[in-house]
Amino acid sequence: MLNVLFSAQPDRWDEYRAPLQDAFSTRGLDVDLRRDHAPETVDYIVFAPNGPVTDFRPYTQTKAIMSLWAGVETVVDNETLTQPLCRMVDHSLTDGMVEWVTGHALRHHLGMDAHILQQDGVWRNTIYPPVAAQRPVTILGIGALGAACGQALHNLGFPVTGWSRSPKSVPNIRSLHGADRLKQALTDAQIVILLLPQTPQTENILNAETLALMAKGAFVINPGRGPLIDDNALLVALDSGQVEHATLDVFRVEPLPPDHPYWAHPQVTVTPHIASSTRPETASQVIADNILRGEAGQPFLYVVDRHLGY
Amino acid sequence: MLNVLFSAQPDRWDEYRAPLQDAFSTRGLDVDLRRDHAPETVDYIVFAPNGPVTDFRPYTQTKAIMSLWAGVETVVDNETLTQPLCRMVDHSLTDGMVEWVTGHALRHHLGMDAHILQQDGVWRNTIYPPVAAQRPVTILGIGALGAACGQALHNLGFPVTGWSRSPKSVPNIRSLHGADRLKQALTDAQIVILLLPQTPQTENILNAETLALMAKGAFVINPGRGPLIDDNALLVALDSGQVEHATLDVFRVEPLPPDHPYWAHPQVTVTPHIASSTRPETASQVIADNILRGEAGQPFLYVVDRHLGY
Repeated sequence: MLNVLFSAQPDRWDEYRAPLQDAFSTRGLDVDLRRDHAPETVDYIVFAPNGPVTDFRPYTQTKAIMSLWAGVETVVDNETLTQPLCRMVDHSLTDGMVEWVTGHALRHHLGMDAHILQQDGVWRNTIYPPVAAQRPVTILGIGALGAACGQALHNLGFPVTGWSRSPKSVPNIRSLHGADRLKQALTDAQIVILLLPQTPQTENILNAETLALMAKGAFVINPGRGPLIDDNALLVALDSGQVEHATLDVFRVEPLPPDHPYWAHPQVTVTPHIASSTRPETASQVIADNILRGEAGQPFLYVVDRHLGY
Repeated sequence: MLNVLFSAQPDRWDEYRAPLQDAFSTRGLDVDLRRDHAPETVDYIVFAPNGPVTDFRPYTQTKAIMSLWAGVETVVDNETLTQPLCRMVDHSLTDGMVEWVTGHALRHHLGMDAHILQQDGVWRNTIYPPVAAQRPVTILGIGALGAACGQALHNLGFPVTGWSRSPKSVPNIRSLHGADRLKQALTDAQIVILLLPQTPQTENILNAETLALMAKGAFVINPGRGPLIDDNALLVALDSGQVEHATLDVFRVEPLPPDHPYWAHPQVTVTPHIASSTRPETASQVIADNILRGEAGQPFLYVVDRHLGY
């Protein structure tokens, strides 16, 4: 019998209880899943940063913390956390992100907004967009999400460059890495997609200097993390036309305050952190699979490197 | 020396003259390309329906008519036309169509318009769309364009059904055919894409009866031909909510008159026949390749069947 503690907000318990129990029993795992185990008896914690557990020291026998969130920046610096921390890597999260990123990339590529916003009876059929093959896309961050988005955009004909801090080789994507290649990755990019983790090194990675590298009239799409962008620099680039439009799903403060200039800016589309979400059925299977690995003596998947921060 | 007559509107001549000459010379074809050959000396006609040639009888030695247009419904019934007529099948036309169809399918799937139109400072993050795997798409017409769109939507996870009049087998698409399977193809479809040719059999194929088969709140996307839709039936279906939104690129009369109810309808997006266009460079290569085939004694590609009408 394994004791698994569920530590997240109460509405998550309603969503996850049955899918987790199903996933455990399907795999032959005998689990007592509860929200109130005595800390020293807990084998695993299913965890969200906004749940009740904030001090991990009493969990002396706990083998791993299974995050429900893909982003771990709010817990990775918790000094009481000494147990392995596993990020959520959920296929439905990836699928949803690919749909959102591909959809908004095509929206900007095709100039859809002009039609959606301007149904005024005037037939304007003189301007054709370039085909995707003539529209270079750069993705900052080519982990699981970025690589999947890059593949989908490649399949549609876009030339895709991916950049990451550490070396990665992704099929069909020009893969660059390291601080000294960031300039090359952004130069002449017409669509830039941010899918980096939030770390001290990635904060404000889009700033006045890097925004100026892109093609004039580029599009910025941020489904990653709010602090990746220097907001004031982006507003300046929008006003100068260096950036034609930004579609932003994540912000330094969420919900984005109603008086934030992004809401009113005609070249910004705010979406309310909906680019993709972890779904209980598939996330529960990921967690159950990872616990099964641990119990079989195999290394856990998706373990966070505390030094890298993701 | 081959005599090739160019018969299209004057602005097309400016666009096509150099690309056609390049494509001929690259292939070693010795061609005299002009707009004014004596009819009885013409080997091939590069043709658009709105150009000067309307009577094909004087072109007694002409081996084939090479259409610049993918749709041939305005010429196929011309009784003076006895020469082989080849449709335009251009990869850049297909690529552009895949981008447009995939983009608008994702736009509706993700509910983008609500965000694009409603930047009012209110953070509404409670409604998640289903993933693509839960959103069945039906494509009426799975020729070159429909099959390519279906493949792209399949790659993004949508379950895709394709329907055509004659049997076709397209990988990764549930392929149905014939009038008696149309009902099955449309039943419960959430996104319906029209890419059929315009023939007497396909006119008004979306009508009150077939619109009622779709899932409640379905999306209709028409980059095919205007007469495929019974416009009054679609307006009724939009008002009842049976169809949530229609994105229409083609119409019975183009430009769509400013007072047409589609322009003003909040659930309709009119685009001005821009879903995809033939591009001179690639279209010229298709035509030159086909002439090369004819001169080598091989059968022409893309020959229109007069009885089927496409």
